[in-house]
Amino acid sequence: MKTINAFDPATLGTLPERRQALIRRREALLGPAYRLFYQDPVELVRGQGVWVWDAEGKRYLDAYNNVVSLGHCHPHVVQALQRQAATLNTHTRYLNEALLDYAERLLAMHHPSLDRLMFTCTGSEANDLALRLAQFHTGGSGVIVTDWAYHGVTASTAACSPSLGAPGAGPLRVYTVPAPSGGSEGVGAAFAAGIEQAILRMQAEGVRPAALLVDTLFTSDGVYGAPAGFLQAAVACARSVGMLVIADEVQPGFGRTGTHMWGYQRHGIAPDLVTMGKPMGNGHPLAGLCARQDLLDAFGRETRYFNTFGGNTVSAAVGMAVLDVLEGERLMENAHAQGAYFSQCLQALARRHAWIGEVRQFGLFLGVALVHDGDPARPAAAATTRVVNGMKDRGVLISACSRSANVLKIRPPLVLERAQVDVFIEALDDCLRGLSGS
Amino acid sequence: MKTINAFDPATLGTLPERRQALIRRREALLGPAYRLFYQDPVELVRGQGVWVWDAEGKRYLDAYNNVVSLGHCHPHVVQALQRQAATLNTHTRYLNEALLDYAERLLAMHHPSLDRLMFTCTGSEANDLALRLAQFHTGGSGVIVTDWAYHGVTASTAACSPSLGAPGAGPLRVYTVPAPSGGSEGVGAAFAAGIEQAILRMQAEGVRPAALLVDTLFTSDGVYGAPAGFLQAAVACARSVGMLVIADEVQPGFGRTGTHMWGYQRHGIAPDLVTMGKPMGNGHPLAGLCARQDLLDAFGRETRYFNTFGGNTVSAAVGMAVLDVLEGERLMENAHAQGAYFSQCLQALARRHAWIGEVRQFGLFLGVALVHDGDPARPAAAATTRVVNGMKDRGVLISACSRSANVLKIRPPLVLERAQVDVFIEALDDCLRGLSGS
Repeated sequence: MKTINAFDPATLGTLPERRQALIRRREALLGPAYRLFYQDPVELVRGQGVWVWDAEGKRYLDAYNNVVSLGHCHPHVVQALQRQAATLNTHTRYLNEALLDYAERLLAMHHPSLDRLMFTCTGSEANDLALRLAQFHTGGSGVIVTDWAYHGVTASTAACSPSLGAPGAGPLRVYTVPAPSGGSEGVGAAFAAGIEQAILRMQAEGVRPAALLVDTLFTSDGVYGAPAGFLQAAVACARSVGMLVIADEVQPGFGRTGTHMWGYQRHGIAPDLVTMGKPMGNGHPLAGLCARQDLLDAFGRETRYFNTFGGNTVSAAVGMAVLDVLEGERLMENAHAQGAYFSQCLQALARRHAWIGEVRQFGLFLGVALVHDGDPARPAAAATTRVVNGMKDRGVLISACSRSANVLKIRPPLVLERAQVDVFIEALDDCLRGLSGS
Repeated sequence: MKTINAFDPATLGTLPERRQALIRRREALLGPAYRLFYQDPVELVRGQGVWVWDAEGKRYLDAYNNVVSLGHCHPHVVQALQRQAATLNTHTRYLNEALLDYAERLLAMHHPSLDRLMFTCTGSEANDLALRLAQFHTGGSGVIVTDWAYHGVTASTAACSPSLGAPGAGPLRVYTVPAPSGGSEGVGAAFAAGIEQAILRMQAEGVRPAALLVDTLFTSDGVYGAPAGFLQAAVACARSVGMLVIADEVQPGFGRTGTHMWGYQRHGIAPDLVTMGKPMGNGHPLAGLCARQDLLDAFGRETRYFNTFGGNTVSAAVGMAVLDVLEGERLMENAHAQGAYFSQCLQALARRHAWIGEVRQFGLFLGVALVHDGDPARPAAAATTRVVNGMKDRGVLISACSRSANVLKIRPPLVLERAQVDVFIEALDDCLRGLSGS
């Protein structure tokens, strides 16, 4: 299973000595399922705002970090972490008013039908719990996901992540559908048709439907979000056979798309379960899900759920501080404004470089498909790898996604400024000019 | 499914007003699968060393916290967290020397055959990954656990946790065996015989064996660790049919048992996979597993594993600081010394109170079985609940475990001092004296 932009150990001998030594040491200590980024991996030692620095003092624009949405080491968040860690770190089996304040604020940002929260430490745990709830509620095991989806690394969520390869046997019967890659008016109907077919396959195999699980921006599939609203047909289709709809907001959530706090809101849908993670703690391990009360009630009567670190006092303080900054610094609005400018600049580049097949932009989540001769049917995977590595050499960190491995995946912190977009565009322009042929 | 020492919402109206209001708010915000501790739940606001304080300023000896093994808010750990969170918080796809230093130090504490590490955020994730690895390696799905085990809350680990109830359908075929509750010489043979029978059931059902998964101190089953070495027969039995042995050290690990860093070392066994969690970050969400390289190699070729927060730069700094304190303050030795004194005091109490059926003590992990009239066959569950709540009223936090819900579960921070043991014993003496009848 090839990972996009993964370091290839076969080239170890070509690297500078310090990196060789570190990588050898890493290979001798950590399991090999870990992948390093880049042909020449990066050793980061410091971060501030949108910038990170490596061990040699080289500065990079971190345009691939949807965890530190507020920028690296945001002082308000670091301070909240410091204060609470020095006061009390304990769990949800004791009462904690700050956790309730945080839960209340977070729920108020969601569709009113989603009225209860559960906290976990990772998005994997949140999706795993959502799937448990869907199975419990429906009595079914059939789950529909897109064909290059990523939803986590637990046994259950890895089985729902075709992009990982080797899903392994699971309790779930997973059916994949093509990602909604059109971008035009017909995309909603086409996506729903794929789901209908998956339901028919499920029924033919005697599998009871349980859930439609989608990343609401289809970020691993290639970043698909247009036109807003297209998910409605898919949701109707899933509900017609009693499936629950799980919106995975781990990547699109917390204002990144610029117009809405959550990807599902862009589509005007009300999912049954919504999972959240990555930027929720700006780096602190914090994730969770919200759901309709009735879904949680029966489950809660049958079993208990306790996550030792999930929703602990420190996580509650950090999560609250993240919302302070997100709102106080109007970062969703900034994502909207800078994202629009970013897109304009990329469109301008596209007019000069036939490598750029399509620019898909939703706030500060951008996907740029690289193709041969401007032909969308000819994905340029090798060129994409060269661009990702070339951007790194020019001091900009990004990566790539999609089954064809030809979509630049760009997700800078939401504090990005216009001048930093210019830095990015100049580097990309230079990279594309340096690609031989077309 | 009744949870031991869980708050019963039916009694809400009897509580002081502030707690009623907080609990109502909590019910309106969080999923009901969460359980609060105690008939009158505790609202904690501050912690220091072995002590915590509630919102009304009442102080409690925290004798139920195997997360903050170094004591609440240990300054060395808090400082490491603060420093790294203000410097850089990023993940394992970039090189990070500090993570390798930490991994090296942690691996050196394990059996030499366990030579590779993987990091997660929670013990659930670590056990989930261990089970994935066992399934991958053996091609089997049959897992043996004890009949009141707890191993986590993901779909896969919850299925291996009979103490949670409602396991739900899973990819694993889970077979339970009686816990090794004897305490005498024959316990190893009896436990292995249970495993042999489970293997026969597995084979009769055509299920291929995958793993024997045990908490090496059987802490949910009732805290069973004597005589040291009894696990050897079980391991031999499991290996005879190609099962992997997973030692769950989330509760017994990091020196708590006083004589060894890990529970499996007490038994002189070398597991194939060892999972770690809870005290690993003294409250910071940090967990992981170590394994034989060959188990990780094939898995790593087939699939990648990336845990966004697992092994991030902050977790590495915190994990290292925890080891500094554990070794620097000689806490394993303290667990040994204070545990022995604790046991003596409990034995002395047992001579005066027929309620105490058995004291099981391993360093600072203690289980005290309460029974009627000194008869081990007559577990006193109701009295146990009264004692747990009575101890709280007297300023000491503990809980209970075992299928019969009659074993006081005592796990104070490892920095416990002799005078604090006296505080505990005095409170317990008073509680037992207050129990009506026998």
